[in-house]
Amino acid sequence: MDLNADLGEGFGRWTLTDDEALLACVTSANVACGFHAGDASVMRRVCDSAAARGVRIGAQVSYRDLAGFGRRAMDVPAAELAAEVAYQIGALRVFAEAAGSRVSYVKPHGALYNRTVRDDEQAAAVIEGVRLAGGDLAVLGLPGSRLLARAAAAGLTAVEEAFADRAYTPQGTLVPRGEPGAVVHDADEVVRRSVGFAVDRGVTGADGGRIPVVARSLCVHGDTPGAAALARRVRAALEEAGVAVRAFA
Amino acid sequence: MDLNADLGEGFGRWTLTDDEALLACVTSANVACGFHAGDASVMRRVCDSAAARGVRIGAQVSYRDLAGFGRRAMDVPAAELAAEVAYQIGALRVFAEAAGSRVSYVKPHGALYNRTVRDDEQAAAVIEGVRLAGGDLAVLGLPGSRLLARAAAAGLTAVEEAFADRAYTPQGTLVPRGEPGAVVHDADEVVRRSVGFAVDRGVTGADGGRIPVVARSLCVHGDTPGAAALARRVRAALEEAGVAVRAFA
Amino acid sequence: MDLNADLGEGFGRWTLTDDEALLACVTSANVACGFHAGDASVMRRVCDSAAARGVRIGAQVSYRDLAGFGRRAMDVPAAELAAEVAYQIGALRVFAEAAGSRVSYVKPHGALYNRTVRDDEQAAAVIEGVRLAGGDLAVLGLPGSRLLARAAAAGLTAVEEAFADRAYTPQGTLVPRGEPGAVVHDADEVVRRSVGFAVDRGVTGADGGRIPVVARSLCVHGDTPGAAALARRVRAALEEAGVAVRAFA
Amino acid sequence: MDLNADLGEGFGRWTLTDDEALLACVTSANVACGFHAGDASVMRRVCDSAAARGVRIGAQVSYRDLAGFGRRAMDVPAAELAAEVAYQIGALRVFAEAAGSRVSYVKPHGALYNRTVRDDEQAAAVIEGVRLAGGDLAVLGLPGSRLLARAAAAGLTAVEEAFADRAYTPQGTLVPRGEPGAVVHDADEVVRRSVGFAVDRGVTGADGGRIPVVARSLCVHGDTPGAAALARRVRAALEEAGVAVRAFA
Repeated sequence: MDLNADLGEGFGRWTLTDDEALLACVTSANVACGFHAGDASVMRRVCDSAAARGVRIGAQVSYRDLAGFGRRAMDVPAAELAAEVAYQIGALRVFAEAAGSRVSYVKPHGALYNRTVRDDEQAAAVIEGVRLAGGDLAVLGLPGSRLLARAAAAGLTAVEEAFADRAYTPQGTLVPRGEPGAVVHDADEVVRRSVGFAVDRGVTGADGGRIPVVARSLCVHGDTPGAAALARRVRAALEEAGVAVRAFA
Repeated sequence: MDLNADLGEGFGRWTLTDDEALLACVTSANVACGFHAGDASVMRRVCDSAAARGVRIGAQVSYRDLAGFGRRAMDVPAAELAAEVAYQIGALRVFAEAAGSRVSYVKPHGALYNRTVRDDEQAAAVIEGVRLAGGDLAVLGLPGSRLLARAAAAGLTAVEEAFADRAYTPQGTLVPRGEPGAVVHDADEVVRRSVGFAVDRGVTGADGGRIPVVARSLCVHGDTPGAAALARRVRAALEEAGVAVRAFA
Repeated sequence: MDLNADLGEGFGRWTLTDDEALLACVTSANVACGFHAGDASVMRRVCDSAAARGVRIGAQVSYRDLAGFGRRAMDVPAAELAAEVAYQIGALRVFAEAAGSRVSYVKPHGALYNRTVRDDEQAAAVIEGVRLAGGDLAVLGLPGSRLLARAAAAGLTAVEEAFADRAYTPQGTLVPRGEPGAVVHDADEVVRRSVGFAVDRGVTGADGGRIPVVARSLCVHGDTPGAAALARRVRAALEEAGVAVRAFA
Repeated sequence: MDLNADLGEGFGRWTLTDDEALLACVTSANVACGFHAGDASVMRRVCDSAAARGVRIGAQVSYRDLAGFGRRAMDVPAAELAAEVAYQIGALRVFAEAAGSRVSYVKPHGALYNRTVRDDEQAAAVIEGVRLAGGDLAVLGLPGSRLLARAAAAGLTAVEEAFADRAYTPQGTLVPRGEPGAVVHDADEVVRRSVGFAVDRGVTGADGGRIPVVARSLCVHGDTPGAAALARRVRAALEEAGVAVRAFA
């Protein structure tokens, strides 16, 4: 099982994610590329550290929206969105390669992630941007999303991810934020579910039934207090359960 | 002689440079990378057109200052400046390479260009950014500038450029803007001087004396009305004088 | 009849609207406030000129989106949107008052204008922002829009506007852009329709029937070539038809 | 003695200053206005809370530099700088007045503060911006600065401030950051010096001698861990020493 987290989400004077602590336990780092967070200095530092630790580097691409942290859906025309995605990948690539590593994959951030689950036009635009950037990139996303469908159709490696702290519907989709119980706050439960995704290839639903979830990567959140500590616990529990924690192939 | 011009200096709804007309006559395109002008869509379009026409692509790197068009000197710490330069080069590279070309060189824009003539710390930071970006990049700048000295010291190809519409001091430096006669407004005179740089390797000073100027590239301005027409005249005059107009080696 | 146009839509080095020529013929200036266009220097210059000419000043408020010129709908939470609207009004007010005038009204720009026609939550947020800003502001918008409904409900003056270069449905709403014939390109026709809104209080539909349109203001576009010339023709035709061209009460 | 602190220095997703805790003990709040930090929502919230607590509201104006947090000196032309200062004051004023308070004073932030100590042209531009904004604003700055000289010359109230955590030269100027001992890190010493400014109207120099410092306001830093706790100790110590802690007249 791969462990991924959003990293490098500071900007200038502001910090958010505890990048060093997270890089010590994840296997894939979704690095912000300057559109919702991240500046050139942060990107360089995170890439240097990720490369030194052998953590895989991915581009966490976003709408251009620093003020909204990329969390506000935007009706960006497809051609612009594709170019913006490619721009972000290219900018990150410089730092990944300078550190002796490379950008291996792309994961949309925030509102772009959510929108490309169902919005086929924007999903196609993101994949067009990934294709423009070249370099054999994988795409990380939600199982069943338009994004992964478009990635697969373009011949890219589509990597499904699961969320340890989110409730799932019987159909295997995420319970929308805002609905009761959508987010799992109990750390023990988060750890248990993480192991479940890896070992049982599923999760327990609200009604106690088992919901199958196929995922090659597990997303742990990086921007909350205690995020790094929880990620460490998740990793330890996975290893204790005999799960090999390593970057997706 | 190489002919270079600043291109792609629109942003979103705004246009500035007549990119297509300029690409039809220059041999090197200094493409804005989003920090003073240029967005991902403009960059893509300019790179596509430059590649199709066989025009060399360079990164016109700048301070991060859209509101000031990169024309306001900024005291950016060296490490930040280096990272910002690399970021811009990486972003442009994606579009150059997608178009089947590459980023061949770097030229600082506006206030960064002017400052790195004499400011050794910022010159070194720009070159550190170029080095970070890798890929065997040349550096285009003013003869005698700290920028070119730092480029040469780092083992990079340093390419001197001349300005057809600027007056020169007897020492071969530019007469500062704001001083009387600093800018040559007469188009015929601009054309004459352009040929002079190429054929006589020099220019006539205010006192009528010849000032030697070594330059492998000639900068024609792109952001004024009539810029493209003047660039065409310069190119035609050079060719008529038997000068081979082609990108620097 | 009031004549309004979008003005001050340059930014830094970039220009777009011919502000002086438009100010010479409109009675209300929708001044960009820095979120989609306009910077502090442009705003100051436009307010000075508008005040000197006795043109009414309005705040053309927008989503925070320079790169997209405010033309991309954004899911901005209501509280944020209200605060952003108030921020823009306040910034413009400084320049209007320094020029001896005042901000008299508010008109949303681009995607925010279009969205608040039907999106009641965003319409309410804009009006909340207007209310926060205080100062007895009118609101300019589309007849039948949620925006004007919310303005009226808040006790603000709601001013309906018509578009001389847009086709109308039999119901009196705009034919959506993208549909055939949505935009009237013929200048003579634009002038004729302008007079029609004022004199006949209506416009001719695609089927030749008369569509009643109640409007106290007529919007002429400012960001196209020839915009100022067309605005002058519209004003002349209105005056020739005996229509008093003056700012709405 | 007035106690002032920089507040509202978050932006979007990012927080920095503990605004509520600081507002509970300072008498003047230097509120960021969106150019180096602060967005419309933060500004509204801080103004609401400051007004409710009776804390005076000031505009902390800055260069337009979110990426550098306003800490990088910029060569902004005077007319642009004046307009930018006015813009920021106007934006803040909306929220101060909506909360039933007003913007009472202006204090430049970071690099603009430092530069206007000696740069007369930028100091004059800031004061021109304050004058444009109207409304009888005081100006808070360093004793002996060009800024305060220009403020006084313009008929504005110039308010000198002292820094409890900075070392002073025998001439009463600040020891430049970067020199040994420039910043006082010991909290007890900071508290002692704070009382000294108020009671003894001076501070002890490196050689043990007394340096007279005239200040009507004392700046406590807000953007470091423990800032609010230290500010509380400073206030308590001042009150214990019989100093009336209240906003400057």
